[in-house]
Amino acid sequence: MTKVAVILSGSGVYDGAEIHESVLALHALEKQGASWHCFAPNIEQLHVINHLTGEEMPEKRNVLTEAARIARGNIEDVANLKADDFDALLVPGGFGAAKNLTDFAVNGAECSINTHVKSACRDFAQANKPAGYLCIAPTIIPMIYDNGVKATIGNDEGTAAAYNALGGQHISCSVDEIVFDEEHKVLSTPAYMLASTISEAASGIEKLVEKLVKLA
Amino acid sequence: MTKVAVILSGSGVYDGAEIHESVLALHALEKQGASWHCFAPNIEQLHVINHLTGEEMPEKRNVLTEAARIARGNIEDVANLKADDFDALLVPGGFGAAKNLTDFAVNGAECSINTHVKSACRDFAQANKPAGYLCIAPTIIPMIYDNGVKATIGNDEGTAAAYNALGGQHISCSVDEIVFDEEHKVLSTPAYMLASTISEAASGIEKLVEKLVKLA
Repeated sequence: MTKVAVILSGSGVYDGAEIHESVLALHALEKQGASWHCFAPNIEQLHVINHLTGEEMPEKRNVLTEAARIARGNIEDVANLKADDFDALLVPGGFGAAKNLTDFAVNGAECSINTHVKSACRDFAQANKPAGYLCIAPTIIPMIYDNGVKATIGNDEGTAAAYNALGGQHISCSVDEIVFDEEHKVLSTPAYMLASTISEAASGIEKLVEKLVKLA
Repeated sequence: MTKVAVILSGSGVYDGAEIHESVLALHALEKQGASWHCFAPNIEQLHVINHLTGEEMPEKRNVLTEAARIARGNIEDVANLKADDFDALLVPGGFGAAKNLTDFAVNGAECSINTHVKSACRDFAQANKPAGYLCIAPTIIPMIYDNGVKATIGNDEGTAAAYNALGGQHISCSVDEIVFDEEHKVLSTPAYMLASTISEAASGIEKLVEKLVKLA
């Protein structure tokens, strides 16, 4: 059975992993006959957003502890993630991918990346194992792969320009399609960068997961 | 387009709405051509559980605010839910359904129910509009309908006995099946009371939602 590692970044679109994308991705992996294994960084979230009002809350939450909500407790510290133990990698989106895995949401093309996340993602790249990134998570890709690596964050011009400034080559893409960089075995799809319904997000995610498991 | 009201009870299996069930249910509604509209009580959660360790955390969280994470902010206070505005009702499970909507998890057959939740659910029953309850949420059903109302929570003997003690008639059911009380137009399926994978939970939920939308 194909084993896929999934890196979550909290639980909730505005400060963590996008919940619909995460569940759709895990379900799609099962439907492709793969098993999923969740990981997240054991760090404090950048901040906590009230998802009803959009305002910041005076609280602190831990990324791994909150991501455990999506994984029903079946999750580990991403510091323990080794490509040797898995066939492929998958990173759902949500602002957490750009606030907790990197600080792209704050610093754009001048961003930095969590060292354990970087190490885990690089490990898959160096092992030539396939990886898929959803929504805003593809902004991580140029920090992992060679200059010119192709991916999509949909069609937002500012984000695409920042992706290119990070050294990647952005490809515009519709919500039901995927971008595949064959040389680097890396896949991406816009998901909620463009989706206005769960079904729209599912269309690209299911296509990406099917390809990811075939490549593994 | 069929409009379905969905009552969430937080965000996370151990203290709120079960996340997979909630997303599967919302996605299934879209796939059946229905629209979904989320509601939750504007009250403090019974408690906050660390989903990594299973231990209680010294925090307070609001059910509506946390449920907004699953709904991407698209949610209202359940006090505003009127059956007149919708064609059907759907209540996902998770311990939140038995900790925040009622206190069944603490008091079993001696439990009480949040007044706004009770009022909303009764409104659908009295309007003879169909309703579906997932996982542990069917323990709410005897508090809403006449004595003898049929539903399932799977096959757990203690929970089934408590369901009967509340005045209902429990029917054992496998994870990929549903129980339909035709007289009361109420549906139930075990979901994570029995499921060990997302796909297993999806099998019963998708069947229930298809029937719910047909009845509406």
